[in-house]
Amino acid sequence: MEKVKRAERLAVMGRVLTANPNKIFTLSYFCELFGAAKSTISEDTAILARTWRTFRLGTVETVTGAAGGVRYRPIGNVESARPFVEELCKRLSDPGRVLPGGYLYLSDILAEPETVRRLGEIIAAQYYETNADFVLTMETKGIPVALEAASALHLPLVIARRSIKVYEGGAVNISYVSGSGRIEMMSLSRRAVKEGQSCLIVDDFTRGGGTVRGMRSLMNEFGIEIRGTCFVLAMRGGAKPAADEKAVMILDPIQDGRPVVIRPGAWIK
Amino acid sequence: MEKVKRAERLAVMGRVLTANPNKIFTLSYFCELFGAAKSTISEDTAILARTWRTFRLGTVETVTGAAGGVRYRPIGNVESARPFVEELCKRLSDPGRVLPGGYLYLSDILAEPETVRRLGEIIAAQYYETNADFVLTMETKGIPVALEAASALHLPLVIARRSIKVYEGGAVNISYVSGSGRIEMMSLSRRAVKEGQSCLIVDDFTRGGGTVRGMRSLMNEFGIEIRGTCFVLAMRGGAKPAADEKAVMILDPIQDGRPVVIRPGAWIK
Repeated sequence: MEKVKRAERLAVMGRVLTANPNKIFTLSYFCELFGAAKSTISEDTAILARTWRTFRLGTVETVTGAAGGVRYRPIGNVESARPFVEELCKRLSDPGRVLPGGYLYLSDILAEPETVRRLGEIIAAQYYETNADFVLTMETKGIPVALEAASALHLPLVIARRSIKVYEGGAVNISYVSGSGRIEMMSLSRRAVKEGQSCLIVDDFTRGGGTVRGMRSLMNEFGIEIRGTCFVLAMRGGAKPAADEKAVMILDPIQDGRPVVIRPGAWIK
Repeated sequence: MEKVKRAERLAVMGRVLTANPNKIFTLSYFCELFGAAKSTISEDTAILARTWRTFRLGTVETVTGAAGGVRYRPIGNVESARPFVEELCKRLSDPGRVLPGGYLYLSDILAEPETVRRLGEIIAAQYYETNADFVLTMETKGIPVALEAASALHLPLVIARRSIKVYEGGAVNISYVSGSGRIEMMSLSRRAVKEGQSCLIVDDFTRGGGTVRGMRSLMNEFGIEIRGTCFVLAMRGGAKPAADEKAVMILDPIQDGRPVVIRPGAWIK
């Protein structure tokens, strides 16, 4: 192969790293790909890291040790999450989104690829140090954001179901009391997880906290530790959130004829 | 700002373009970002396109005309889809995946971020010329792949539900006969789509074709044209697929004690 120039190497390294967030690539991998020396690749990595830092496009880190190499994490500059979340709060405050029963219509936003990717990255950024084994969500609306959080963390996603499905195989089922006081069911395939693993819970919305209590009890049945819980939107005035629970946005209870009040969670910088 | 070098510009352009597949960025956008001349950015674009073509990392195209600029499409080199799909077929052929009732366990694979991204890209590549307005899926298992297909096409995702939900607002509901002969319901918020739009259907699995008939009839209720339908897996021997239906993988009916036979769709090159 013809010699690959620095600009070309950076274009390829950038593409490979961002397609696989949080995955460690050895320097040798890139040395072989480009037929370049380790010192050259090392310098490339430093340029990539510095450039993306300048343009706030995420972090490129060198990991030392036996399993070392280089990895990309879509951690935006700390200044960049808040304007995005504030803009989202503004969109969600539209009175046209208020539904009977004091709900807010957010299904459209929760299925916009660019929006859920950014939300997933913002959520993931909180949990890089937890070393969880998978991300858990409960069907349906939280799946896109949970998938993007899992992707940013380089973890598989596990989806709990509302009922038993033939194509999930043997399952563990639990019942729980939903926010509205009804008895609901939650089901998870025995094949999906292993005892002794740990997980992060990512879900779209919490009000009474019923669903997340269900997920906790489900993880308890499987002997799985929960290392963090994050919602896209939490309604204030419901059950007191657990110490390890975060929400990207906080919504005041919706009252007829009053404007919708919604703001970024305090941890969104 | 200090002058940005070619290698740095390529690292940034690559990152911006791949984070927004199929979105057109004007050359002026990058000229302003880097304080560079149009001819420089034009040359950068050509290098990026050539490099990614060489390394099979997707296409960078210059779009001419008033709304012109540069865009990235994650269309792998034609040689690259088939080995990926063949590997997936091999994983799915594991006899341990066979479930009672002749089903195959694929929930894990359908929620692996890297796998669903690749599947979404392979599916999307077939539909860049359809100019559809959104991607439709039916909850639950197909959501991750459908999201990634929508992302690759720069389109919103719309998720049909199995029952009416208070937080979806007013909805159109239809009933349909499922593959197993039961009457099922499908529901879609009136807010989710507009009459006169067009869509692509992406779903995880088809056997009798009941669910997709339901989705067709739902789109008909909304006055929406369907411009393509693609499944991750289709079981052969069910209903004859419609002319515009594709599947990434084809599964022979599962028989007790016989090996699972699964192969890439004929269009997977």
